Amino acid sequence: MAHGGYEAWLATAVAEARSGLAEGGIPIGAALYGADGTLLGRGRNRRVQDGDPSAHAETAAFRAAGRQRSYRGTTMVTTLSPCWYCSGLVRQFGISRVVIGEAETFRGGHDWLAANGVEIVLLDDSDCRAMMRDFVTARPELWHEDIGA
Amino acid sequence: MAHGGYEAWLATAVAEARSGLAEGGIPIGAALYGADGTLLGRGRNRRVQDGDPSAHAETAAFRAAGRQRSYRGTTMVTTLSPCWYCSGLVRQFGISRVVIGEAETFRGGHDWLAANGVEIVLLDDSDCRAMMRDFVTARPELWHEDIGA
Repeated sequence: MAHGGYEAWLATAVAEARSGLAEGGIPIGAALYGADGTLLGRGRNRRVQDGDPSAHAETAAFRAAGRQRSYRGTTMVTTLSPCWYCSGLVRQFGISRVVIGEAETFRGGHDWLAANGVEIVLLDDSDCRAMMRDFVTARPELWHEDIGA
Repeated sequence: MAHGGYEAWLATAVAEARSGLAEGGIPIGAALYGADGTLLGRGRNRRVQDGDPSAHAETAAFRAAGRQRSYRGTTMVTTLSPCWYCSGLVRQFGISRVVIGEAETFRGGHDWLAANGVEIVLLDDSDCRAMMRDFVTARPELWHEDIGA
């Protein structure tokens, strides 16, 4: 798919991140798309909203998609490079592709995923970068808690 | 800690696994203990019970522990070698130690964790092995779904 298609998918993840920010949460969003382009699930970080440290955006989107027999051909779209936890999710379940808004404010496990056969598309989106940079500057303690730093 | 101490902790995870089995679920249990030995959270695989593919045992125990500022000194006890998803959880949040009931029926990412500074204690518990072996034999399709195989 051309990057233009991925950017339309990224918009779903960005909308989730912005909703999270409006709720006082951590602005990271994600969406899981099927091999045929169907939206299977979408979600956002819910650490603050639900008091749930396991609810990273990618996990929330994966959960929202419910039980699936196979993840072959699916794409996880996320506003930010996936942490080790979410990278492990992608590897374990055989999600085929990860589309990443940006990896400048945080660099997770996407090189490890690429080395293990996952297709990585890094969009370097300036809106994603600005949203995360502003958040990390405003709430460093919350951000560090979210990544166990 | 002597292995006898870890086996007492493992009993908590085994009790979770047995509860899951009784519910018709996948018999994997886990518990997160604090540096001082306090039980922070416990949980079991809830794929069947909640229709939630993200609820692996370790993630469920981590979630039950709620928000924590640091995981330094904590121990994740699990009946089965942690898959990549749960191994990623341990690495990202800096959980110090993983105590594993068995790694014979499934071998996840615990060598990777050891290589990245996590203390691994493999108990090779015969009850854990038998419980998982019986389950995989009885419900192979459900087990494969749970690990994306």
